[in-house]
Amino acid sequence: MSLLVVGTVAYDSIETPSGQVTEETGGTATYFSLAASHFSPVQLVASVGEDFPVERRRIFDGRSIDIEGLETVAGGRTFRWSGRYEGDMNVAETLDTQLNVLETFSPKLPTGFRSAPFVFLANAAPRVQMQVLDQTPGRKFVMADTMNFWIDSERDGLREVLRHVDGVVMNYAEARSLTGETNLIRAGNAILELGPKVAVVKKGEHGAFLFSTYMFHAMPAYPVPEVVDPTGAGDSFAGGMMGYIARAGSVSIGNIKRGMVYGTVAASFTVEGFGTSALAAATRGDFEVRFHEFLNFVQ
Amino acid sequence: MSLLVVGTVAYDSIETPSGQVTEETGGTATYFSLAASHFSPVQLVASVGEDFPVERRRIFDGRSIDIEGLETVAGGRTFRWSGRYEGDMNVAETLDTQLNVLETFSPKLPTGFRSAPFVFLANAAPRVQMQVLDQTPGRKFVMADTMNFWIDSERDGLREVLRHVDGVVMNYAEARSLTGETNLIRAGNAILELGPKVAVVKKGEHGAFLFSTYMFHAMPAYPVPEVVDPTGAGDSFAGGMMGYIARAGSVSIGNIKRGMVYGTVAASFTVEGFGTSALAAATRGDFEVRFHEFLNFVQ
Repeated sequence: MSLLVVGTVAYDSIETPSGQVTEETGGTATYFSLAASHFSPVQLVASVGEDFPVERRRIFDGRSIDIEGLETVAGGRTFRWSGRYEGDMNVAETLDTQLNVLETFSPKLPTGFRSAPFVFLANAAPRVQMQVLDQTPGRKFVMADTMNFWIDSERDGLREVLRHVDGVVMNYAEARSLTGETNLIRAGNAILELGPKVAVVKKGEHGAFLFSTYMFHAMPAYPVPEVVDPTGAGDSFAGGMMGYIARAGSVSIGNIKRGMVYGTVAASFTVEGFGTSALAAATRGDFEVRFHEFLNFVQ
Repeated sequence: MSLLVVGTVAYDSIETPSGQVTEETGGTATYFSLAASHFSPVQLVASVGEDFPVERRRIFDGRSIDIEGLETVAGGRTFRWSGRYEGDMNVAETLDTQLNVLETFSPKLPTGFRSAPFVFLANAAPRVQMQVLDQTPGRKFVMADTMNFWIDSERDGLREVLRHVDGVVMNYAEARSLTGETNLIRAGNAILELGPKVAVVKKGEHGAFLFSTYMFHAMPAYPVPEVVDPTGAGDSFAGGMMGYIARAGSVSIGNIKRGMVYGTVAASFTVEGFGTSALAAATRGDFEVRFHEFLNFVQ
């Protein structure tokens, strides 16, 4: 079944101990779509500026990614982010953020996208996430991501979003910040009290936890010997997970768990190269190989 | 941790193809307590008449069952039920019901019972179940049973109860009647929409289903070669299940599933004899033997 993602398409400039790249095509919707489209047709909604040429769109070619919702803002400049990773590579140091077209981003879904049964709200202002919810009345399952910036500055708006989504995916630091709980289990359960029926708390190289009513499930990460660039790992994880759930067509704890395995596999490709390069090069067959390696690894 | 049950202590007269008994000590709280007390201390609240002599209370002796809440109504007569089982033994034909003390039953919990962390509301008028909820503000997990009579006659009151309990246990016919859904999976999910976070739907010899958010779990029944008398099987199931959960001290899907296994084991004893005779004779060791037999049987 089709899967809608509303997020960003961006220019990322990244420094890591392995090297650096400048103005690579990145963004939450980009990583998400590249991972998810191995499993399910993706409908992408994002906004770029006039500085985002046609050839840049080729990254989506030959995949089940419908970019009818990729809007070019007249006279606008594409969102730019630059960051640096050092040490344990778990946290990026942001060097520069230029919101540009994101400052006025107000998603208008193409008519054909409004009936998407599966929806992912990538990290965005709660106001933007609510606009997507308003335009997807027929959705069956929606998950949202967020970040500390919104937890700190738009807590009420974020809580409103949480009351309307079925699931949420966030990293451990965000979960702690949102709930005020430092213990992982308590933080996970506290998220559920805010509305979502499932919460996936990502712990990077330490895997992810799934929380739902009276249950939680711990999943290690697919082990990667050398991390080149962690940028986009979280969105790749979400893409693999939601892509699989949308493919399965029904939401169950079992499908979410299997989706999380495809999510960690997607993230494992992403971190092996700069930007989207390694994820974009992975085939569906590569996903299956690592999926089964992972199952052997955890059994 | 201690487990409170509010239900009935009754005189049951039963006919089955195996024979008949008259005015045996039965009732929902009796079966529940006998099963649950193998795992956790039980606090029993029920009401009997002056025709319930001291020697009848010996059924609770030597077990972890506190009967401080077993009230004798001055001038009252004990609740009486008589029924007959034929054919597939799955449904009792009620021959006679004399409510007696139940007509005015309004549970007043002993002070020491009000802090029980685990609570079971056996089948009763929704008004009575709400009175128990009002007196157990510190409860951690409460499950309720009901019956078709209340579904038909007190639907609004029952819905109010369902909004306040954590879990519900009911048989398949009741689940269908409550939700209007004939499909088991849809009925189970429709119960959750009424408020409970978990629903256990009992199917007698066909086992039980556990429903919670985005998950369900099917469990067969412990196979019994000869059913002598099914009376009390459902309450024994609930007692084994809640007793185990209270012993575990925390509510998780895993603990509920294990509790359901102890529940089906408790019910398997109950149906092997008339009234409470076989259940009362089973030791904790007997429970463990069947628990492990069951695990082998389903693996």
